Amino acid sequence: MIFEQKEIQLQPYQRGFHLITNLIVNDFSEIKTIKKGILKVFIKHTSASLTINENADSTVRQDFESHFNVMVPENQSYYIHTYEGSDDMPAHIKSSLLGSSIEVPITNGRLNLGTWQGVYLCEHRNYGGSRKLVLTAFGV
Amino acid sequence: MIFEQKEIQLQPYQRGFHLITNLIVNDFSEIKTIKKGILKVFIKHTSASLTINENADSTVRQDFESHFNVMVPENQSYYIHTYEGSDDMPAHIKSSLLGSSIEVPITNGRLNLGTWQGVYLCEHRNYGGSRKLVLTAFGV
Amino acid sequence: MIFEQKEIQLQPYQRGFHLITNLIVNDFSEIKTIKKGILKVFIKHTSASLTINENADSTVRQDFESHFNVMVPENQSYYIHTYEGSDDMPAHIKSSLLGSSIEVPITNGRLNLGTWQGVYLCEHRNYGGSRKLVLTAFGV
Repeated sequence: MIFEQKEIQLQPYQRGFHLITNLIVNDFSEIKTIKKGILKVFIKHTSASLTINENADSTVRQDFESHFNVMVPENQSYYIHTYEGSDDMPAHIKSSLLGSSIEVPITNGRLNLGTWQGVYLCEHRNYGGSRKLVLTAFGV
Repeated sequence: MIFEQKEIQLQPYQRGFHLITNLIVNDFSEIKTIKKGILKVFIKHTSASLTINENADSTVRQDFESHFNVMVPENQSYYIHTYEGSDDMPAHIKSSLLGSSIEVPITNGRLNLGTWQGVYLCEHRNYGGSRKLVLTAFGV
Repeated sequence: MIFEQKEIQLQPYQRGFHLITNLIVNDFSEIKTIKKGILKVFIKHTSASLTINENADSTVRQDFESHFNVMVPENQSYYIHTYEGSDDMPAHIKSSLLGSSIEVPITNGRLNLGTWQGVYLCEHRNYGGSRKLVLTAFGV
């Protein structure tokens, strides 16, 4: 049984959806030693999130940003938690809609993603700063 | 430690929400050998997704389809990624809202689901075709 | 390899979002024996869910309840599954939007959560009753 875990810190990203698949793979070469396993990626924040989606056309990521801003608008009259800025409460809600972790099967030392799948960092704050991820890979 | 992984290909499903619990269990008899463990199901696509919900009344699955079409409508003026059809960009967003993987505890050789829980394949495209799943079960 | 699993039953919570981090940790002391691992929490229901979000200000949890009620309203004309009450079908949809499980890395015998992260029980029914969770912790 192989069980590897590491914490990494990302550069600050601007608000929006960003492909980080290569960054994770390059930072975690232990994946190559696993024949059958799972990679888990966990984000240690409540106003940024992780998801898996289309890895080719950047307009998909732009449309994600547009639609999430419609589905979870700023400045709703019913928000009470407003003292951290108008982007803050929507950022919390978006984070839970997308989730704080993703997982990918590992097969023969590689992430077993579909052809069009990539890992997104979803930065929901205007100035979210540097985000921390915990990477855990295990298997045989 | 038991660690089993296999890839399966589903028949094409029509757009909507479909119960696939039995299909997964029948296709993965190694679950029976695990006393305490986890089953992970991962879908290798970005316009179909997986979730766990009510397994009895098919109207729940119909209402899922209706509500997701309202929450993530087609033909929004702000969509840029439109060249793959009006159902494509909403399918990507719905997929990330529901997620590309589910997990279920395994207890004494069986999925430890609640009485009313089942696994849904969520097909968000009009003609999504055959979808691939990676099943991973591990435990002791 | 350490692999521990247990089922717990929560007291009934009122409709809304509730912090249950301490309750989980206190109920599962085996976490302390794991140096590098994962905690999975699974809810055995389809009208309550789990998520990770802000652990400090209770107004965040109130705003979650307000916004989910707007994003997934009761009494929509297109709902067919209505015989269990007007809060039932929205509860199913909210549950899948948030998800039936969360995971947290375990590092040096402790949950490796970010400073502001906590585990929420999301009770979507008016009278949901007592909910069952399956806790699984594994690692080395």
